[in-house]
Amino acid sequence: MEKSEIEMGSTSKGKAPLLAAAVHHNRPAGGYKRGAAVFDLILRVCAVAAAMVATIIMATTEQTLPFFTQFFQFQASYDDLPTFTFFVIAMAVVTGYLILSVPFSIVCIARPGVIGARLLLVTCDTLAVTLATAAGGASAAIVYLAHNGNSDANWLAICQQFNDFCQRVSGAVVASFVAVVLLIFLVVISAFALRKKH
Amino acid sequence: MEKSEIEMGSTSKGKAPLLAAAVHHNRPAGGYKRGAAVFDLILRVCAVAAAMVATIIMATTEQTLPFFTQFFQFQASYDDLPTFTFFVIAMAVVTGYLILSVPFSIVCIARPGVIGARLLLVTCDTLAVTLATAAGGASAAIVYLAHNGNSDANWLAICQQFNDFCQRVSGAVVASFVAVVLLIFLVVISAFALRKKH
Repeated sequence: MEKSEIEMGSTSKGKAPLLAAAVHHNRPAGGYKRGAAVFDLILRVCAVAAAMVATIIMATTEQTLPFFTQFFQFQASYDDLPTFTFFVIAMAVVTGYLILSVPFSIVCIARPGVIGARLLLVTCDTLAVTLATAAGGASAAIVYLAHNGNSDANWLAICQQFNDFCQRVSGAVVASFVAVVLLIFLVVISAFALRKKH
Repeated sequence: MEKSEIEMGSTSKGKAPLLAAAVHHNRPAGGYKRGAAVFDLILRVCAVAAAMVATIIMATTEQTLPFFTQFFQFQASYDDLPTFTFFVIAMAVVTGYLILSVPFSIVCIARPGVIGARLLLVTCDTLAVTLATAAGGASAAIVYLAHNGNSDANWLAICQQFNDFCQRVSGAVVASFVAVVLLIFLVVISAFALRKKH
């Protein structure tokens, strides 16, 4: 551990001579940044799990009714509603990005002085939080409508008929919001890790 | 200008002696950070305008039909749909926050070395982008439903009857997404302004 830290310091110095003054005080700040990077990795793995659960729950949800109703169809699946299709695609993209970002997070642990990886992460995390929020928010609006209906627009609630479907979809929306909260923390942690040393 | 920069340097040195080494190289980095802060202020004012337009368009939208239809009601306004009520509240909160954040952005221009204000801005901007995206995404899902309906769920499109209403609501959603894009840029600019000097 001691040895690798010293190596890291000298590598940074060799690569970016202008950072020499900053590297001079490297010890406490490097430890602080490394702690933030470890926390970042843990939150990122949790966010991968949440986003993956949201995608899988939504994508595998379907319900076939055993009896006739006034509806034309008797089977409900996520691709009946375009919003849920968007949810599956968006959350799959977010899951894929989060998995790909894990190596960059590990780079930030190994070399707390490298800020390129962290700037890349904070930029892409911001886009990911927007995508996940848009998917979660849009699906939440449709799920609310499915549960409660809207008498003003004459849209009837469909959850009396498709109860299992609605419950699983609601679970997927909740999982996506868990991923959103974790991503917000990731952005804020990255911003704090990027600040100048004290 | 010259005088204020020198004063700023000495004040930072007095307040945070540990920053002395960083303040030493202040000139070019201060200029870079100041440029980022000016850009931040311009984008922020544009985001205030976009968020305010979104709020006002949505809040003032109502349409009364001159003829009878199969619907029970003959007047449409934003509070008929809970999602649009959420949109108005959320975008009003975002607008209020953005107006309150302008003084902090000006502080970042006047004193590029002060990172407390910038950390506050990047944290709150991240929350604001989430709130605005949730409002925009949820309303976009409902607007899509109002335009196209959904035969599987037996929800009819209402935009044939309430055409003006739908167009104004769509405009508000577009304005909210403009605000979201500007907020994403604000977060990314703040992250780049927070990084160590090169």
